[in-house]
Amino acid sequence: VTDSAAALRTAFLGYIDCLNTQAWQRLGEFVDDEVRYNGRPVGLRSYREQRQAEFENIPDLHFAVDLLACDPPHVAARLKFDCTPRGTFLGLPVGGRRVQFTENASYAFHQGRIAAVWSLIDREAVKRQLPQ
Amino acid sequence: VTDSAAALRTAFLGYIDCLNTQAWQRLGEFVDDEVRYNGRPVGLRSYREQRQAEFENIPDLHFAVDLLACDPPHVAARLKFDCTPRGTFLGLPVGGRRVQFTENASYAFHQGRIAAVWSLIDREAVKRQLPQ
Repeated sequence: VTDSAAALRTAFLGYIDCLNTQAWQRLGEFVDDEVRYNGRPVGLRSYREQRQAEFENIPDLHFAVDLLACDPPHVAARLKFDCTPRGTFLGLPVGGRRVQFTENASYAFHQGRIAAVWSLIDREAVKRQLPQ
Repeated sequence: VTDSAAALRTAFLGYIDCLNTQAWQRLGEFVDDEVRYNGRPVGLRSYREQRQAEFENIPDLHFAVDLLACDPPHVAARLKFDCTPRGTFLGLPVGGRRVQFTENASYAFHQGRIAAVWSLIDREAVKRQLPQ
């Protein structure tokens, strides 16, 4: 598997499609067994469980790529969300309210798969959309 | 001015160096007159004032590039900070405490200069470093 910018773009968009279609059995094609998340070793199984839990809490979750920068071995993306978390989200009592927010995330690829993720979600934007 | 990946990398690192050396009179070499910040039209003058105000509040502010992805016309960076804000920072009473945090930011270049910035700072990380 080559890690050219074009290959990374294809792999990353495949990863996003895998999430959006909840094709969990295919996640290992895109995510390394030893994936790290925000500096912590997480591993594919736990990473998958966390993504599944997000879809359980947010049934209309959809990852939309707003900006994508592919520069081997790194990918950085700005992701946009417009969704309706059921309960608590990011520690906020969102409870069925539809909210818009962004995530700025960067990824390190290793042999065609995501080996590390650094993610920041705009929690303040969500907070601003809740009653004060 | 070309916007190749290498040119963007050079321009971006020049921008970071301009900030770190507080070479404010040179900021216009790197930032477009009509720069937008997190979707809002800000303009170079106001953008410069905001960066200057940050250095006033954080005398030991230093931008360290932890990850850089250059994919014309976009640049995405993970920036690391280890600094001592004097007063309130991100609405938090940091007051002279040394804190570490990251920023995930992406940039759109236009004719060699930064025309748009989308920035997210890890406010929760700062919060975790304060007394509860």
